[in-house]
Amino acid sequence: VAELTRPILLLTDFGLHDTYTGQVKAVIAGILPGATVIDLTHEVAPFAIAEGAWLLETALPAAPARAVVMAVVDPGVGTSRRALVVRSGERLFVGPDNGLLSCAFTDEDRERGAYASAGAVEVHELWDPLWRRPEVSPTFHGRDIFAPAAAYLASGIDYRHMGPPAPNPALLPPFRGEPGPFGELRGYIVHVDRFGNAITTIRGTQLFPRFALDAAGQVIDTHVRTFSDAPGERPFCHTDSSGFIAIALNQGSAAAELGLRRGDPVVVRAR
Amino acid sequence: VAELTRPILLLTDFGLHDTYTGQVKAVIAGILPGATVIDLTHEVAPFAIAEGAWLLETALPAAPARAVVMAVVDPGVGTSRRALVVRSGERLFVGPDNGLLSCAFTDEDRERGAYASAGAVEVHELWDPLWRRPEVSPTFHGRDIFAPAAAYLASGIDYRHMGPPAPNPALLPPFRGEPGPFGELRGYIVHVDRFGNAITTIRGTQLFPRFALDAAGQVIDTHVRTFSDAPGERPFCHTDSSGFIAIALNQGSAAAELGLRRGDPVVVRAR
Amino acid sequence: VAELTRPILLLTDFGLHDTYTGQVKAVIAGILPGATVIDLTHEVAPFAIAEGAWLLETALPAAPARAVVMAVVDPGVGTSRRALVVRSGERLFVGPDNGLLSCAFTDEDRERGAYASAGAVEVHELWDPLWRRPEVSPTFHGRDIFAPAAAYLASGIDYRHMGPPAPNPALLPPFRGEPGPFGELRGYIVHVDRFGNAITTIRGTQLFPRFALDAAGQVIDTHVRTFSDAPGERPFCHTDSSGFIAIALNQGSAAAELGLRRGDPVVVRAR
Repeated sequence: VAELTRPILLLTDFGLHDTYTGQVKAVIAGILPGATVIDLTHEVAPFAIAEGAWLLETALPAAPARAVVMAVVDPGVGTSRRALVVRSGERLFVGPDNGLLSCAFTDEDRERGAYASAGAVEVHELWDPLWRRPEVSPTFHGRDIFAPAAAYLASGIDYRHMGPPAPNPALLPPFRGEPGPFGELRGYIVHVDRFGNAITTIRGTQLFPRFALDAAGQVIDTHVRTFSDAPGERPFCHTDSSGFIAIALNQGSAAAELGLRRGDPVVVRAR
Repeated sequence: VAELTRPILLLTDFGLHDTYTGQVKAVIAGILPGATVIDLTHEVAPFAIAEGAWLLETALPAAPARAVVMAVVDPGVGTSRRALVVRSGERLFVGPDNGLLSCAFTDEDRERGAYASAGAVEVHELWDPLWRRPEVSPTFHGRDIFAPAAAYLASGIDYRHMGPPAPNPALLPPFRGEPGPFGELRGYIVHVDRFGNAITTIRGTQLFPRFALDAAGQVIDTHVRTFSDAPGERPFCHTDSSGFIAIALNQGSAAAELGLRRGDPVVVRAR
Repeated sequence: VAELTRPILLLTDFGLHDTYTGQVKAVIAGILPGATVIDLTHEVAPFAIAEGAWLLETALPAAPARAVVMAVVDPGVGTSRRALVVRSGERLFVGPDNGLLSCAFTDEDRERGAYASAGAVEVHELWDPLWRRPEVSPTFHGRDIFAPAAAYLASGIDYRHMGPPAPNPALLPPFRGEPGPFGELRGYIVHVDRFGNAITTIRGTQLFPRFALDAAGQVIDTHVRTFSDAPGERPFCHTDSSGFIAIALNQGSAAAELGLRRGDPVVVRAR
C-alpha cells in the first residue's frame, strides 16, 4: 500500500517509556493496515511547544513532500483548544492549535502572528466525530483524535471533509535571532541534543564574520565547519545540520560542561 | 502483505539501549518480510511482570482485533517455565507462562486464579522446535522462541500446530482496588509514566464521589477531568486514558514531588 | 514491496532524543516508499566505534541474509575519512571507514589488519553524488550520504555503481580474549546492557573450565547457564546470547553494584 498512501510522520512528547506512542501506532494500524509510520521523535520535553515546533521545522526538509505529519505536544488537551488539520503545499499536518504546527505556515504569517495565506496554506478544524475513535479520553487526544485523523488522511480522505475552516490558528514567530538595540542578535537555546550540543535560535546565515556569542556567562568566538576542526578542548560554534548555530565541545557535552539549558538566552555581538 | 497477514505488537523489558529489540525484529523480518511490527513499549521495568501485564492490558483496547501480541518480561527464562501461545477471541498472544498474558483471559478466570474458559480462550504450549530458531539461547527466548512464533502466527500458521494444549497457565488477579475491612479500597502504584503520573490499580469507576486517597503519606481528595482543571500546584487525581486513577501534578512530576514509586500501596476511603 | 526489496537495518549513535534518526528514516521513505526499516539500536555510546562494531557483529546473526546494513558512529564526519559500501556474501553495508563495519570482513583480514579477501568481500567508496542528497551537511552524513545510499541499495541499485573500489579499509581486530604472557586471557568490557550485565570481549568458547575472572578488582569464579541458576546474591559469569562472557547479578545490575564500566580491562586465569 506504500505507493498508494501517504507516509505518516510522528512527533510528540509521549516518550517511549509507556505505551502512549504504541497506542497511537496501534490505532493507525487498525485504520490503515500496512501504513508507513516514521518516528521523528517522541522525546520533546513534556509540554515544550516551542522545542517541538523547532524540532518539527528542522526535521521536515528531510521528509517526503506528501507526508502526513502528526505532531502532538499538548498541555491544553481536554480544554476548548481546537484540533487542527493543515494543508501546506502537498503536505498535511494534524495537531493541537497551540503553535506547534507553525512550520506549516509562511514566515510572513508567523511574523505578523496572523494567518492570511489561504490558498498556499489551508486550515480546518478536526471537528467531525466520524474521523475519531468512538470514545475520546480527555487526556489522550493523540490516540483518540489525531491518530485516526492521520490514518484517514494517509488513506486518502480529503482533509476538507473533517471539519470547517479554522480561522486564526496559533502561530509562533519564526525561529531566528532577533536584532537588539545595539546591533546584537538575541535568541535562546531551543534544544539540547543527545551529544550535549546546545542548539540556538540563531540561524547560521545570521552569524557575523567575527563574533562573540554569550551564553550563560560563557563567551565563545570560534565557528568551525565540523567537529574535527574544533579547537582542542574549548567550546565552539558550528552550523548544525538544522541550519542553526549550535554550541559544542569536541567529543564532549557542551551543555553539561558549560551548564547550558533549554531556554537559556543567547546574545551574539559582532567584534 | 499487510492485508493478508496479522500485525505484530511487541511489549518487552528489553529496552532500546541494546540490540535485543532489534534482533527480535530482524528475526521477524527474516520469516515474514514486510511484516507490520508495532512497539507498544520495551521499557517495562526489568523483570516487572505485573507492570508489564498492566501496560499490555491497558494498551490493547487501541489495537487491531487480529493482532499477534508478543509480550516478554521473563525472569524465568531458561528454566522449565513454559512458553505459551494463547488465542483470545481473534487475537493471538505469545509469551512466557508467568502471568504476563493475563489480559488474554477472562476476569472470572483471573479472580479464581484458574483457567476454565476453554472455547473463548485457548492455551497451547510453544513446544514444536519447527517454529523456533535452530539454536535457542538459554537467556534470550524473545529472539529464539517468541519472535519466530509471532512471525509464523502473523503469516497464518495455526497456533494449534505449535504444541499441545497447556493446562493451568499462570494468571494474575484483575487489576482493581480490593475492598478492605473498613470499606476502603486497597491498591498500589502499578506504573509511573514519563510525565511523572503515578498510576494506581484503582479503576476510575471504583472511585467514591467524595474520597481521600492516601499514597506514601500524602492525602489527595480532588479528582479532575483533565490537566487544565487541576487545582494550582496541589496534586490531584484523574482518570487516566487507561481507565485507572492516576496521581498527577499540573505540568510537573507527581512521582518526583511526592516520592511515589512503583509498588507503593494506595488506600482510598470515602469521606 | 517487501519481497522485491531488501530490508534496511540501522545501527547508530544518533539516539532517539532528537530527530536525527527520524530524519534518516524520512530520507529513506522518500527514496523507497514502503521500505522495511529495522532499528538494531541507536544508543551506541556517542563516538564509541568499538562498542558499535561489537553491537553490530553480535546482532547480525539474527538478520536476513540480504539485508542492507547502515551503521554510523562517526567521530570523523566531515573530514576526509571515506564513506564505504561493503558487500559481504549477500549482505550490503554502508558506513564510515573507521572500523565500525569490521564484522563484514573475515577474521583473517581483521587479524592482519589488512583487507585481502576480494571476492568474498568487496569494498567500494560512496563517491558518486548521484546517490546522495543534493546538499551534504558537514556534520550529518547519516542523513545526507548513508541513508540515501542504503535506500538505493535496498531498491536494487548495484553497489559497484556508487564509486570505485576502496583499498585498505580500516579494520578492528576480532573481538576475543587475547592470550597474555602467563597463559591468561586479556580483554575488556565492551558493552554494559540495559540490565547492567557487563559484557566482555572474552568469547564463551574461550573460558577455562575452572577460572578466575578479574574485573575492576572483583574476582568471579562461577559460570552459570542461565539467570535462575545464579548463586544467590554474588556476581557470576554467563555466556550471553551474543556468545560472549557477561558479568551479571541475578535480578540486579552487576555494572552498578561492582562499579564496572565500558572499557574496563578484564583478565581471566585458569585455576
